Amino acid sequence: MSEPNLAVDFGSDRSYIDAALGAACETLPPMPRRLDRAVRYALSGPGKRLRGILVAASYRAAGGGGNVYGLAAAVEMLHAYSLAHDDLPCMDDDDMRRGRPTAHKACGVPATVVAGVAIIPIAGAAAARSVRGMYGGAPRAAPIVAVLMQAAGASGMIGGQLHDLIAEDIPADSLEKLERIHRAKTGALMAASAKVGGMAAGAAGPAVGALGSFGADIGLAFQIVDDVLDVTSSSDALGKTAGRDAELGKSTYPALLGVNGAMDRAVALARQGCNTLQEHNLLSQELRHLADLVITRTH
Amino acid sequence: MSEPNLAVDFGSDRSYIDAALGAACETLPPMPRRLDRAVRYALSGPGKRLRGILVAASYRAAGGGGNVYGLAAAVEMLHAYSLAHDDLPCMDDDDMRRGRPTAHKACGVPATVVAGVAIIPIAGAAAARSVRGMYGGAPRAAPIVAVLMQAAGASGMIGGQLHDLIAEDIPADSLEKLERIHRAKTGALMAASAKVGGMAAGAAGPAVGALGSFGADIGLAFQIVDDVLDVTSSSDALGKTAGRDAELGKSTYPALLGVNGAMDRAVALARQGCNTLQEHNLLSQELRHLADLVITRTH
Repeated sequence: MSEPNLAVDFGSDRSYIDAALGAACETLPPMPRRLDRAVRYALSGPGKRLRGILVAASYRAAGGGGNVYGLAAAVEMLHAYSLAHDDLPCMDDDDMRRGRPTAHKACGVPATVVAGVAIIPIAGAAAARSVRGMYGGAPRAAPIVAVLMQAAGASGMIGGQLHDLIAEDIPADSLEKLERIHRAKTGALMAASAKVGGMAAGAAGPAVGALGSFGADIGLAFQIVDDVLDVTSSSDALGKTAGRDAELGKSTYPALLGVNGAMDRAVALARQGCNTLQEHNLLSQELRHLADLVITRTH
Repeated sequence: MSEPNLAVDFGSDRSYIDAALGAACETLPPMPRRLDRAVRYALSGPGKRLRGILVAASYRAAGGGGNVYGLAAAVEMLHAYSLAHDDLPCMDDDDMRRGRPTAHKACGVPATVVAGVAIIPIAGAAAARSVRGMYGGAPRAAPIVAVLMQAAGASGMIGGQLHDLIAEDIPADSLEKLERIHRAKTGALMAASAKVGGMAAGAAGPAVGALGSFGADIGLAFQIVDDVLDVTSSSDALGKTAGRDAELGKSTYPALLGVNGAMDRAVALARQGCNTLQEHNLLSQELRHLADLVITRTH
């Protein structure tokens, strides 16, 4: 295998996920024009599709052999909602994301607030529809939607979003607190991605739990690398404003552990995630590769 | 019966709904402190509980005899979410609501944005829990939650919210357009309230449909009276800033039809709603009384 590259590897998965996202946009419920436009804008941002790829790779590691891309796309929708709300002026107040204007810059704040709220049930319905269409999927749809909604809910992503905001007021934060925040903000949806991939393949409880731990660990590793890249990269390479964390006075891993210490922590987390999978006979070559990609990525 | 008074009549229902709301606040999921505070603030506003009362009265009209107040409280939670988001600076930008500071004034904009998003699944889970606990309720929980989520979703309340905002830019709006906006904004949740009340009692499809029409009609009547009161009442009597619609340059019923014309329209809608129920043998004395209250209220 050549040098790992998160923007290149898993290209086939990424294409199928993009196609499934496009198909989902063709069956959106009727909405007022401005809301419809904002929902489509939020859902059409380019991306690495890391969460969707994690769904697909976890599904295969658990023995699944069908088309899981509708479910992967639903997870990417939830991620898109969180990005749109994260960038709002009342949150991180960011103008650029993935090399294009953020949703509120393109569609206005009100439409973006409402579109974010609208995307959650749209993603839930898309996940249910997709899983019901899979072989043996009907009884799995409700528990899968429940896992996704919980990850998107107050104890998960949106709780983490606010944690993040609170942390801005506390620059000298503790590592433990920072880890809790990132585990909610990024880890919750990454854990859910791996879990629902396993659930869609009919994996048993302990296997689903192991996949969830793996997702949470590489999710946190991903966030640490994100913090490091914010310090070490340019805005052009990142496709968003670099140095933003320091500007906002945010507590970050490099600030607490130094760049090398932060990277050591990310590597240890990826290894820990892989070990958990190994113990459950779930460490496929591609899940190991995905863990590598998370810690070696450069943007 | 004495003169109808929306603040006094249905007092027993209102007390039970308030109690159920309080109980629901004791089983909220774990959330970051600031989010938890904003959710509780949004859910603890005083109110007429019109939607919850509509749930309870529709339930009884359809033959229900159990405790429907958990479901009624879940509907009031969705209403509380919509009020919190409606008042945001990027929406109507209002400081006072029901005689106390609006949620973002008390808890900040970020926490209020996130709390609004958090309340939707909290309300869905509360409705499901409540209906499952009712006699014969288990198979009714999922369709009831689906109706509520749809009313809260992009085609319902939150779509209407944005319509409202769009309409601010078009002062000389058409009556048809204004009616469509209000039907989405207020009518969707009022229709859902009456529907889920009937569904919880095991009503058949046509009866549920008739209750939904009644809810939509008195919901629109309620909104028309709201517009009228904004012109004719003081801020003290309303518990919110009076004259706000004109200040915002909003298209309203009194602006389009005059105060008397608007009231005629509200009365006609209430009559139409009652006629629909009559045709289905569902027009209980208390649903008729509720329709009267909507058009005779003074705040």
